[in-house]
Amino acid sequence: MNIDTVPFAAEPAAPRTGLPKARDMSHHLNSITKRREANKLKELYKYAAIPGMIPMAGGVPSPAIFPFETLSADILRYDHLPLNPPRIPKKQGLFEWLFSSSSPVTDKINIPKYAPDPTDPMAIQLATSLQYAAATGPPAFPVWLRKYVETVFKPAFADWDVLLDVGATDAMTKVCSMMLSEGDSVLVEEWTYPGAMNAYLPYDVNVVGLPMDHEGIIAADMDKVLAEWDVEKQGRFPRMLYTVPTGQNPTGATMLADRRREVYEICSKYDIVIVEDEPYYCLFMDEYVPQGVKLSPVAQASRDAETSEGGKGNDAFLKSLPPSFLHFDTDGRVIRFDTFSKTSCPGSRLGWVTSSPIFIERLTRISECGTQAPSGFATALTLTMLNHWGWDGYVRWLRGIKANYRMKRDWMLDALADSFHLESDSNGLNPLVITTPFGRRFTGYARPNPASAEGRWDEKRGLTGAHGKPLISYIPPSAGMFVFLGVHLSGHPEYAALGDDATRILADRLWRVLAKHHVLFAPGWAFDPEGPHNIGGEGMGYFRLSFSIVTYEETRDAMEVFAKVLGKFLNK
Amino acid sequence: MNIDTVPFAAEPAAPRTGLPKARDMSHHLNSITKRREANKLKELYKYAAIPGMIPMAGGVPSPAIFPFETLSADILRYDHLPLNPPRIPKKQGLFEWLFSSSSPVTDKINIPKYAPDPTDPMAIQLATSLQYAAATGPPAFPVWLRKYVETVFKPAFADWDVLLDVGATDAMTKVCSMMLSEGDSVLVEEWTYPGAMNAYLPYDVNVVGLPMDHEGIIAADMDKVLAEWDVEKQGRFPRMLYTVPTGQNPTGATMLADRRREVYEICSKYDIVIVEDEPYYCLFMDEYVPQGVKLSPVAQASRDAETSEGGKGNDAFLKSLPPSFLHFDTDGRVIRFDTFSKTSCPGSRLGWVTSSPIFIERLTRISECGTQAPSGFATALTLTMLNHWGWDGYVRWLRGIKANYRMKRDWMLDALADSFHLESDSNGLNPLVITTPFGRRFTGYARPNPASAEGRWDEKRGLTGAHGKPLISYIPPSAGMFVFLGVHLSGHPEYAALGDDATRILADRLWRVLAKHHVLFAPGWAFDPEGPHNIGGEGMGYFRLSFSIVTYEETRDAMEVFAKVLGKFLNK
Repeated sequence: MNIDTVPFAAEPAAPRTGLPKARDMSHHLNSITKRREANKLKELYKYAAIPGMIPMAGGVPSPAIFPFETLSADILRYDHLPLNPPRIPKKQGLFEWLFSSSSPVTDKINIPKYAPDPTDPMAIQLATSLQYAAATGPPAFPVWLRKYVETVFKPAFADWDVLLDVGATDAMTKVCSMMLSEGDSVLVEEWTYPGAMNAYLPYDVNVVGLPMDHEGIIAADMDKVLAEWDVEKQGRFPRMLYTVPTGQNPTGATMLADRRREVYEICSKYDIVIVEDEPYYCLFMDEYVPQGVKLSPVAQASRDAETSEGGKGNDAFLKSLPPSFLHFDTDGRVIRFDTFSKTSCPGSRLGWVTSSPIFIERLTRISECGTQAPSGFATALTLTMLNHWGWDGYVRWLRGIKANYRMKRDWMLDALADSFHLESDSNGLNPLVITTPFGRRFTGYARPNPASAEGRWDEKRGLTGAHGKPLISYIPPSAGMFVFLGVHLSGHPEYAALGDDATRILADRLWRVLAKHHVLFAPGWAFDPEGPHNIGGEGMGYFRLSFSIVTYEETRDAMEVFAKVLGKFLNK
Repeated sequence: MNIDTVPFAAEPAAPRTGLPKARDMSHHLNSITKRREANKLKELYKYAAIPGMIPMAGGVPSPAIFPFETLSADILRYDHLPLNPPRIPKKQGLFEWLFSSSSPVTDKINIPKYAPDPTDPMAIQLATSLQYAAATGPPAFPVWLRKYVETVFKPAFADWDVLLDVGATDAMTKVCSMMLSEGDSVLVEEWTYPGAMNAYLPYDVNVVGLPMDHEGIIAADMDKVLAEWDVEKQGRFPRMLYTVPTGQNPTGATMLADRRREVYEICSKYDIVIVEDEPYYCLFMDEYVPQGVKLSPVAQASRDAETSEGGKGNDAFLKSLPPSFLHFDTDGRVIRFDTFSKTSCPGSRLGWVTSSPIFIERLTRISECGTQAPSGFATALTLTMLNHWGWDGYVRWLRGIKANYRMKRDWMLDALADSFHLESDSNGLNPLVITTPFGRRFTGYARPNPASAEGRWDEKRGLTGAHGKPLISYIPPSAGMFVFLGVHLSGHPEYAALGDDATRILADRLWRVLAKHHVLFAPGWAFDPEGPHNIGGEGMGYFRLSFSIVTYEETRDAMEVFAKVLGKFLNK
């Protein structure tokens, strides 16, 4: 109990639909979490709400002495970002045309200390936002989030609820502290997000990477790992799967509907809790279409619908998003993280968890004695912005964000296509002239003349085989911010001589050479939970290339430098 | 490592003074904390800072697509609150004159998306504030906090440092997760803050309450507890003392210099880490002086200096504050929590820890994979406000806050004096006509005519003894927001008949009767770690009365109702 800072205790969620309720998941709580107690002073808060009560029970400062009298912000309009920006920036000099120095058109939002009706619990006012608050945050926020969850995810059980957090990293730490005991086992993707590793590795967990393809975890391989689990050799049976199913970090893979259902069913079969971390959910941008390639009429119609203004475009966008694991979650075993970091800004430190009542209730207890509610500055400004834009406006904003990331992904993939001779692994045909199916892997070879867009393969370069040796391989990402790029380090002249550590040594050497040429990639080993790899494997060194903050020109320069440096590196 | 969200790794603090460095405290870390790893990619960030580098390593969104273009606020002037408000509000109707509905004079602060020099690391701009940030927060903030710590606390070791948190509750949870293992023992005050209990109780800890007086923990009693510790009977030897030394919650006690030194020396002797939680530090308001009582010339001169405008007044205020445990901390065993919740607003969710390098470094690791930096809205607005006010302005603001709480404390204590016949325990003289020494306990008896300010003791009321039976006892708080008020429930006619649970049953009954009369106190049992009590004891039921948000009129009404209800309750 915390009578000074928790004016209202969280109540378990009422069933929201006619669907069955979640199953009991309390066996997944650790001993510390089971001992957390709910507020013993609920009755006190009931009395506190009686009009005319003289409030000497709490321990909160008077809003009169908060130094902030009003708060305001100039915010971008919801349609600020274009839905279908040109593939190549039009402005002269190829500078990032979109973000020119001229001031964009903005709207003003204002938050007063006292709303016109200060007793309205849905009102946003600094007297409330800047006061102590229940861990569940300002009441209007969960109302908004529940609408979002119901509309976008459509959970498959009735009594789900949401809980604000200060970002997915905070949520992950709370979930680990709720579930894990030292020596537990955790399932992850074969390449995984190091920020999450920081949360579970200190528990001395046994981490098991699951083989992936372009749609993430391969269900059959996952089932095999679990079916063959040997407690004596491998330790405790896994209780948690941590996954970034949309725009996986670092691979960019996205699990579509069938894959999610398959993985969900395995988790249900083996009683595994799914931690679904979805920072890039709204950045799902679908397949990469090489420059000059014509989409099929059906695909083009879909793309047109999704990039057109208005309600139909909004609907097409929502329909284009992959389903959440929640949509298949008849058990209530999914703990989903969403965040405003990519859709608004990371510094807001604002996100939310959606899950079954037992997990939401325990996470509320954990939040009450930790972060409490997120910063009132963040909730008040974000909620006021959402209310100003309205539901349709916010969906339009998300579409602009998506289009922006798709544009930047295409900048990088187009630059790779111009700096390397690319072939698609599955059919050997030039991907520049045919439509590539979702998830196809490209392999890049040296181009005789990278400066010439017409340059094709030149036998006279003296490279081995028909196309020389392969330099890079990658699967175009379907969401997120990254291209996960493999380098065929086994082609390096010293590879054999360097022995077991050759890949790591050469990757590190290449990374330094690139940095000296002013191109900074993230090294792939940082994402390696250290198991066998389906994406990668013997002789492949990986790098994660972020396209989120680079300009068109920087992207072109970097890929050109990379191709030159790599050619020299592997052929010296 | 978390390459997406931690652009700069925290470096251990350089020694700040010529004092010795902290001792090694790493044996106080638990196994999970020892396993946390520092960022493996430090080198990457060194390269990232090179001008001209094309940044494809990180995973951060472009500030161009943050929807917030500018942020502004109207803030109160630093001298908004008077230093010496009149004892009785002057405005007609006795409404809270200070906070009339007319708008106060405010200044405008603005935070642009890009500062005039966006590369200045000290600049406050939304492009940085709303971006991912190191857990240490915007670089200008620790600079500001270190000045505060050095000036106000003057730590006794050289290599202390600060770390931002999202409030002291967050800090406490992090410290528990850093230090505690299931089954540890924790020392607390005999009455203690339930919000902190929520953080350590789930670890199944053995909680030991230490006897208190008006200055908090009694050093000799603490030494005795530790000297006589029996591991077989009492479990593991304590490793942590949790204390609120200024304006203790709920008792209002404050440890002054000698007491803190004594308690520190015991902790040093027995190798105990001191968690010093100081939300009310700047609300230290010194002794209560009853209405009409003249201070000694020396005390009056000190009060005059401390309530006068200007630099001398600021100096007198800073000098009047009790020393922090840090000031005696030659070992580096103090973990101090400060917060902006009472000096700015709780909704900012902003505070900081000051401690030795090992604890700051581990807490930084914990924050990196949890809360990360506090919300950029909160840090940007708070820092801009502090910079706008300047150092002297902020000190003046703190003095206004202190004066405001002193005024409100005096409202409540004056109202008690007018509603009860008070005597000072130690000398039996009427406290209304002599100066009361710091920490004296008052006992209240029924007044024959509470409505009359002239009313004194009336033998004809037929109460037992010279003054009838005692009704209440309390020590006027020297800081904070609360009066911790004991009711002599043993005087209730049913007390003996109710048996062992009489105090709890009668306290609960009284609490309900008061709530029905629209007076809401916090029940004392919520603050009880369940040990023997020096403040309280057999037959005493406690209530915590908050004076922070009630008006003058409400305070008068509440104490009058309380006196009437209590008289009836104990005499029926």
